[in-house]
Amino acid sequence: MNEIKFILNGNICSPLGFKASGISAEIKKSKKLDMGLIFSERDCVTVGTFTTNKFAAAPVKICKEKLSQGNFFNAIIVNSGNANACTGNTGIKNSNEIANKTAQLLNICPKKVLVASTGIIGEQLPMIKINNGIEQAVSQLSQKNGLNAAQAIMTTDTKPKYAAVNFKLHDKIVTIGGMIKGAGMIAPKMKVLHATLLAFITTDANISKEALDYYFAKAIDHTLNRITIDGDMSTNDSAFIMANGESNSMLISNINSDEGKLFYKALQSLLSFLAKETVKDGEGVTKFITVNVKNAKSKNDAEKCCKAIAESLLCKTAWFGNDPNWGRIIAAIGYSEIDFNPETIEVYIDDYPIVLNGMGVQEELSKIITTVKRPNFSITIDLKSGESDYYIWTNVISYKYIEINAEYHT
Amino acid sequence: MNEIKFILNGNICSPLGFKASGISAEIKKSKKLDMGLIFSERDCVTVGTFTTNKFAAAPVKICKEKLSQGNFFNAIIVNSGNANACTGNTGIKNSNEIANKTAQLLNICPKKVLVASTGIIGEQLPMIKINNGIEQAVSQLSQKNGLNAAQAIMTTDTKPKYAAVNFKLHDKIVTIGGMIKGAGMIAPKMKVLHATLLAFITTDANISKEALDYYFAKAIDHTLNRITIDGDMSTNDSAFIMANGESNSMLISNINSDEGKLFYKALQSLLSFLAKETVKDGEGVTKFITVNVKNAKSKNDAEKCCKAIAESLLCKTAWFGNDPNWGRIIAAIGYSEIDFNPETIEVYIDDYPIVLNGMGVQEELSKIITTVKRPNFSITIDLKSGESDYYIWTNVISYKYIEINAEYHT
Repeated sequence: MNEIKFILNGNICSPLGFKASGISAEIKKSKKLDMGLIFSERDCVTVGTFTTNKFAAAPVKICKEKLSQGNFFNAIIVNSGNANACTGNTGIKNSNEIANKTAQLLNICPKKVLVASTGIIGEQLPMIKINNGIEQAVSQLSQKNGLNAAQAIMTTDTKPKYAAVNFKLHDKIVTIGGMIKGAGMIAPKMKVLHATLLAFITTDANISKEALDYYFAKAIDHTLNRITIDGDMSTNDSAFIMANGESNSMLISNINSDEGKLFYKALQSLLSFLAKETVKDGEGVTKFITVNVKNAKSKNDAEKCCKAIAESLLCKTAWFGNDPNWGRIIAAIGYSEIDFNPETIEVYIDDYPIVLNGMGVQEELSKIITTVKRPNFSITIDLKSGESDYYIWTNVISYKYIEINAEYHT
Repeated sequence: MNEIKFILNGNICSPLGFKASGISAEIKKSKKLDMGLIFSERDCVTVGTFTTNKFAAAPVKICKEKLSQGNFFNAIIVNSGNANACTGNTGIKNSNEIANKTAQLLNICPKKVLVASTGIIGEQLPMIKINNGIEQAVSQLSQKNGLNAAQAIMTTDTKPKYAAVNFKLHDKIVTIGGMIKGAGMIAPKMKVLHATLLAFITTDANISKEALDYYFAKAIDHTLNRITIDGDMSTNDSAFIMANGESNSMLISNINSDEGKLFYKALQSLLSFLAKETVKDGEGVTKFITVNVKNAKSKNDAEKCCKAIAESLLCKTAWFGNDPNWGRIIAAIGYSEIDFNPETIEVYIDDYPIVLNGMGVQEELSKIITTVKRPNFSITIDLKSGESDYYIWTNVISYKYIEINAEYHT
């Protein structure tokens, strides 16, 4: 019962019992798809995790409130093009109205509908367009429209990002699907999700709220919280998982059971794929880089060291320029405020040493120069100060990044 | 006795008794000037402040040691083109050899010579070239060569940065001169200096070590520590002040005296000018922006809030694109981990409100749009949470920044 398979064109509608839609409500001037809906007729055990930005957007506030008061949900309605953030009481009223209207058309209780928004900050939602959009979104709900939903949540993303995995749990097939949006303004943060990131995960697993909570938090900590593009974090970050039990598999409620561990492994694979796709689709991205820190004195030190390197503009521009530049890596480690001995530190590009005993080494330089020209390589720091490891997935800063962010008014 | 005047073409040789030189030792392939020397025959009370980067370069380690063991110095010898960082025991030996050779040629004690380096990390200094360079630098010492010295410390700087001020202290004229190099890799840090920044200040004031220590630290905290270009900080940051007493003015030893306060005011004016010049000459800079945070709960909160905004790539690219984009400012404040009420916050561009009570206002939008097109404007955040203020001087991230840092291998 161990094999986890990615499903061809898998998406949020791959698990049994889920329908979706993606339509244009013309919130975006481009008339690209900008409203999405996910629906399961059968109640879903649902978990959400949100930005800790103090300017949490109206939909974030509403979802937190609803999730603290109930365990079962049936729908999430999401729009792009407008974040409904910094919009005061009107913003709250509008997000509630969206949930209520969606519930009414789906003929379910309003408290079972969640909401999400992404886009420009500080403008009120165009409610006439949105109300029309909700009608369209409900009318187009179909098991076939998972890809449309993935398109409807895009902002500066260059392509929709979605996937699904399945695995056999005793005599049943359990499926997990997901879609994500990312691009600019992405930074990781321990414990909770921190990114202009909307992630929606669906599954037909039969699982308890407690187990789902535990696995989702753990999987996010190892995937979505490990990505960084520009160090900024948004007002609207939200990740949801809905489990409707339609697979009729045995109930997963013990987090230490083999069944639970298999579910986690599948969830982690899916989120890992979606997180990496998000980094690769970051604004102006030309390279995907894994920063590994090994043998730090504490997990906190390992994380701080990873972040200092992954968020260093000088490192990111060097990588963009195919320059291994270990001097900039060393400088970033040096100011990361962690505990280590500068005279024993080692740095590797993929498996090739570039710093040993705190000093540059030349032996593998030609291989290293070839490696940093590739679209995908790793940087590994051995701090030799303890037993804690951490990794972060990151990318480069390019001309294109500047262009997008100087000219796109989020 | 209150007027502080900037001197036309003032530099490190404007104070009485200082000579300087700047020559090419061909450390730089471009054959631009790359070694500088500052010398006062009369002993100088000397104070230095240095990077806290764990990979402090060899010259930094040596200067810290020398300054802890003596109060009086006569010379500083500096090179650009090579940082002498991550160079192990050979690096230490080389920096000592430079100080010793300089002392020998100046006919002074080696312990009275300080050293500084900036440039590429991880390569050993070319000692044959450097020894020839020291001979040239000593032979060309002159009161007229202050500008050459300012050129010799440049790396990615587009122009030499220098100035001098004077003021009347009772019946004497006291002068303070300075030169600075900056450009990329500049970030502020409380208490100590943190930037790929070399600053050399000379003065003919007659001042005690304790008073000089106090005023230099305070002036740096309000000037050089307030600048940020890319958030990185280097292995070589050093700032020095040398006071030789040649003005024969009355001794300044009481930090609360009117004379001391006047000296501080002049020093602060000079460092403020040099710090701002450095931000304006940062890599690929098109705009100079002051971020003010008012009424924070603590100075620490005010500083964190300033830094979050000034180091946000999304804010910096928005300003580059002439976009006021208060949403990105608000997002940065929101993740800065400070204490405030999002519903009462105010944001101003120059004097025009753009956020009141946590929500965008449109009244002054046309004036704001005109303002952000200018090369110089301020952003003021009123947190309404306490009485602490802070400011940071920053700039934008442009295509040029990426070009320089992707293609220049520091």
